Amino acid sequence: MPDLQSVLDEIATDLKTASERGAVASYIPELAKVDPGQFGIAVLTPDGVVHSAGDANVAFSIQSISKVFTLTLALGQVGDILWNRVGREPSGNPFNSIVQLEYEHGIPRNPLINAGALVVTDVILAGYKPREAIGLILSFMRSLAGDDSIIIDVDVARSEEETGFRNRALANYMKAYDNIRHPVEMTTGVYFHQCAIAMSCRQLAVAGSFLAGQGRHPLTGNKVVSAERARRINAVMLTCGHYDGSGEFAFRVGIPGKSGVGGGILAIVPGKASIAVWSPGLNKVGNSLLGSRALERLAKAMDWSIFGP
Amino acid sequence: MPDLQSVLDEIATDLKTASERGAVASYIPELAKVDPGQFGIAVLTPDGVVHSAGDANVAFSIQSISKVFTLTLALGQVGDILWNRVGREPSGNPFNSIVQLEYEHGIPRNPLINAGALVVTDVILAGYKPREAIGLILSFMRSLAGDDSIIIDVDVARSEEETGFRNRALANYMKAYDNIRHPVEMTTGVYFHQCAIAMSCRQLAVAGSFLAGQGRHPLTGNKVVSAERARRINAVMLTCGHYDGSGEFAFRVGIPGKSGVGGGILAIVPGKASIAVWSPGLNKVGNSLLGSRALERLAKAMDWSIFGP
Amino acid sequence: MPDLQSVLDEIATDLKTASERGAVASYIPELAKVDPGQFGIAVLTPDGVVHSAGDANVAFSIQSISKVFTLTLALGQVGDILWNRVGREPSGNPFNSIVQLEYEHGIPRNPLINAGALVVTDVILAGYKPREAIGLILSFMRSLAGDDSIIIDVDVARSEEETGFRNRALANYMKAYDNIRHPVEMTTGVYFHQCAIAMSCRQLAVAGSFLAGQGRHPLTGNKVVSAERARRINAVMLTCGHYDGSGEFAFRVGIPGKSGVGGGILAIVPGKASIAVWSPGLNKVGNSLLGSRALERLAKAMDWSIFGP
Amino acid sequence: MPDLQSVLDEIATDLKTASERGAVASYIPELAKVDPGQFGIAVLTPDGVVHSAGDANVAFSIQSISKVFTLTLALGQVGDILWNRVGREPSGNPFNSIVQLEYEHGIPRNPLINAGALVVTDVILAGYKPREAIGLILSFMRSLAGDDSIIIDVDVARSEEETGFRNRALANYMKAYDNIRHPVEMTTGVYFHQCAIAMSCRQLAVAGSFLAGQGRHPLTGNKVVSAERARRINAVMLTCGHYDGSGEFAFRVGIPGKSGVGGGILAIVPGKASIAVWSPGLNKVGNSLLGSRALERLAKAMDWSIFGP
Repeated sequence: MPDLQSVLDEIATDLKTASERGAVASYIPELAKVDPGQFGIAVLTPDGVVHSAGDANVAFSIQSISKVFTLTLALGQVGDILWNRVGREPSGNPFNSIVQLEYEHGIPRNPLINAGALVVTDVILAGYKPREAIGLILSFMRSLAGDDSIIIDVDVARSEEETGFRNRALANYMKAYDNIRHPVEMTTGVYFHQCAIAMSCRQLAVAGSFLAGQGRHPLTGNKVVSAERARRINAVMLTCGHYDGSGEFAFRVGIPGKSGVGGGILAIVPGKASIAVWSPGLNKVGNSLLGSRALERLAKAMDWSIFGP
Repeated sequence: MPDLQSVLDEIATDLKTASERGAVASYIPELAKVDPGQFGIAVLTPDGVVHSAGDANVAFSIQSISKVFTLTLALGQVGDILWNRVGREPSGNPFNSIVQLEYEHGIPRNPLINAGALVVTDVILAGYKPREAIGLILSFMRSLAGDDSIIIDVDVARSEEETGFRNRALANYMKAYDNIRHPVEMTTGVYFHQCAIAMSCRQLAVAGSFLAGQGRHPLTGNKVVSAERARRINAVMLTCGHYDGSGEFAFRVGIPGKSGVGGGILAIVPGKASIAVWSPGLNKVGNSLLGSRALERLAKAMDWSIFGP
Repeated sequence: MPDLQSVLDEIATDLKTASERGAVASYIPELAKVDPGQFGIAVLTPDGVVHSAGDANVAFSIQSISKVFTLTLALGQVGDILWNRVGREPSGNPFNSIVQLEYEHGIPRNPLINAGALVVTDVILAGYKPREAIGLILSFMRSLAGDDSIIIDVDVARSEEETGFRNRALANYMKAYDNIRHPVEMTTGVYFHQCAIAMSCRQLAVAGSFLAGQGRHPLTGNKVVSAERARRINAVMLTCGHYDGSGEFAFRVGIPGKSGVGGGILAIVPGKASIAVWSPGLNKVGNSLLGSRALERLAKAMDWSIFGP
Repeated sequence: MPDLQSVLDEIATDLKTASERGAVASYIPELAKVDPGQFGIAVLTPDGVVHSAGDANVAFSIQSISKVFTLTLALGQVGDILWNRVGREPSGNPFNSIVQLEYEHGIPRNPLINAGALVVTDVILAGYKPREAIGLILSFMRSLAGDDSIIIDVDVARSEEETGFRNRALANYMKAYDNIRHPVEMTTGVYFHQCAIAMSCRQLAVAGSFLAGQGRHPLTGNKVVSAERARRINAVMLTCGHYDGSGEFAFRVGIPGKSGVGGGILAIVPGKASIAVWSPGLNKVGNSLLGSRALERLAKAMDWSIFGP
């Protein structure tokens, strides 16, 4: 087994200067301003050590990676009845998911696409004011990352509010089927804020580590979720975590992961590692181009795959 | 860790008499004749021992499970250029796949849905006559199962030929995009025969065991595929092996598997087990109802999941 | 040629008591309260006489029939550049139109489906406050009907605002493509009010009569639109006026028409008649069941069809 | 009213040399060989006179225009029960119709798209051998055109047989729903031959004239169909005759018409004219570019529209 730190250093050195870097997401104006030349990676191993390389301490917009954490939070609040309002099948659709919402009567395919994540946020909102729900999600992230300095990037949140018409369309469409229970502006408002949480690779690798540890956080020792639930969240990440590139990611990288349009990816090697990687440029299906490549190299070098012994 | 044989016995005893058994596939008349009261299961462990329970020696029509083996064969013949003609994303579509073929210009989503498997068979046909290609596939199955008595059920093959208009539609549609290279009747003819191969759970568990053993067959010691390819086939099985129930299977059972409308499922626990289960009744998305339940129970009892350590 | 009044009387007598009446629209609660036992019909002939029968003076919610008039108004304001933002092809979709919006990047198929009518209303809004735009539309209807007593049913408007999430989804979705230019609540607000205009068959037949008269209003003599534009609006009504029942209406009745979920239909026999019919119960594709039947009988009796000499 | 012959001469002179001519259909190799520089037009008026201009006597492949005549023939054979197997709604789909076949369980939207026309041909086949059915259709065309020299272009028919995989896909798909009753090769074989009938504008204008004459042929005086059926066929042509350009044709030209990928269009002005126009280059939705323009000019010049008096 090669030395993890050496592997990370090599990858970061190579990718920091790669010429092909993908395109930074342009539909959220604030995200379009991010310097595409950045690359960071961090890995938390079961011994509690974080190895990192490149821009691993630079905060970026976690965007859809937040969906894994709100899913965890909502399952904690309401349990498996959550699945009455959202499925767990890959969307498998190059077109975005409003088509499927129509065919499937307002029930989104899974909690890791926008429509499904809006339902999850709507579940979290029950009994709270939007500001409280945002606070709850932020506290959860801070607690998992063990870092109270994590904040919401208000410029990104505002930018999303100004341009998030497609998400409002999804939410209104589901509300027509009564699968959004709060006023659309409340649910989308909370959602835009959760997406705008800014974290570094280091913070994110720590925050996600309970998924690699059978539900137990390796640093605090806290049981975040049951071992069974951790496995199931990993399963949903594997089949649905990279939109219509989920099959490709499973094929090439071979571990569960969730990407965000900010260029971050959280990836989990059960029992072995919690990984966060970040590079802002995206590939054609909207996942970090260099992030995906870094994970493929890392998994190969470390012989990390859930599909082999 | 509980005793595997006891677990299998318990499951078989319970499920043999379960009242809710699903519906036997009716669109292939020959399959509709099968007695729904049957249930068998067999597990091959790395030590080369096969444990089994119930009707584990009764041959059934493997149907779509054959797709895993023809994929293996085609990759062996042409390598990764196969992926130019077929994708590896879940179809994610409750409607069947001809819709997606139209949107995606004749390239099927993955090799484990009918359209994709037809392309794979078309690849295998290159340089052979149909009869030879059928022979090649059958020999491959016999060799993997270590049993030359395995045959094609000609009544099932004929039944499929008489009713397989939807598969002919798929093949013709792809031929319009030049993604079927042989006459449609030749490709579908071979395909109908591969689906009609009859095997028992015991034979199937042995045949699939190379996928649990990093590509090496535990009984013969032969390297069937590279370790990387075995992992990748497992990845495709996990994301695509149960049609539009793949996410659910990953969520509940947590291991790669491939189902067939004959009621069989092949499931792989990397490094630990090759499992075949069979019960003819199907659930709503076309996978064996009791087979899925059996695998869920077995995986839970043995703590087999690729999503936890 | 039979006597028009006698034909209308016969039809009204028969249909007033028909047992099969369709189902009153239930998704707008206010509309669900309407008594399904009503039936009215009115016909304006070129001599300026209105013949009527049944509940021809009872005001009902014109709903989507308003789309013909806002289309006329918007074409008057901006001319044919309107067609840059909305197509003129039948939607031909049993599923509703948000699917097509996704495939066609925010350009609705035609101005007589909800998505298209929202764009038309958005065009009318340019330069006005919502209240003014609503006033403009109402004034236009009053002027065409020659009746200043026509009002908006505020209970229906409020009911639509409370339940119109699908329309908000459409508007937000198009706004993501910049094909809605005003805040969604403004455009949908005006739209909900135009749909809630209450008119009788008599008023509606008078209001639509310019379409039968080459663009000239037979009572006032005013040129509302050019002869060419009147023909083109009739063409759009024929191909798109009855949602996914447009082909059937053309086949059976053979004249241009536009239906609304309030149970009204405006139908035009160029050069011969402007017809309004109303009965609240709808058929499976959302058009007035008895209204369609009445028009089929009337057209047959009077030998009115645009498809024969 | 301008002089018809002068109008035709002007149009033919202008369009014969137009630089923008569209693209000749390339998917049927034999059609791709046709010289795009050709343009012909012919008009039969109720007095039985044919006016023509340009290449009005050059035979071309009528292709989908044949669908109007096989529809007429099939309705004559089985009457309105035909509509149990095919709808009469516009397909409204920029994607081709196999998608809709899946959603609507093997019932094509209308008889003027390929899927629907295959069903119509399958109806005609009942009780006949393929050769006889082809003979029947050809005889019907010859009789309507009053010209026994009309033949099937066997090179085109062969070319279609060699490349018609998409049509075979449609037919197989419908056969899976039992909506094709003969062997697929028989039904598609007859269909490929009907499409390959070669006629000139002059012959086609005469053949279609019964649709302008309330079902009666103006030259022979024969009643081909009832007046009601003629109207209904015209209605289907108007809503469905130009694929996904039907709304546009109704809007711009304002009369029923049916186009073919050979570049021909048959258009009907009830009571006034039967028109055939031909120019091989197609527009984006597959209809003759110059043919459509010629009809728009002709209809405007002669004030022919079914949407105005």
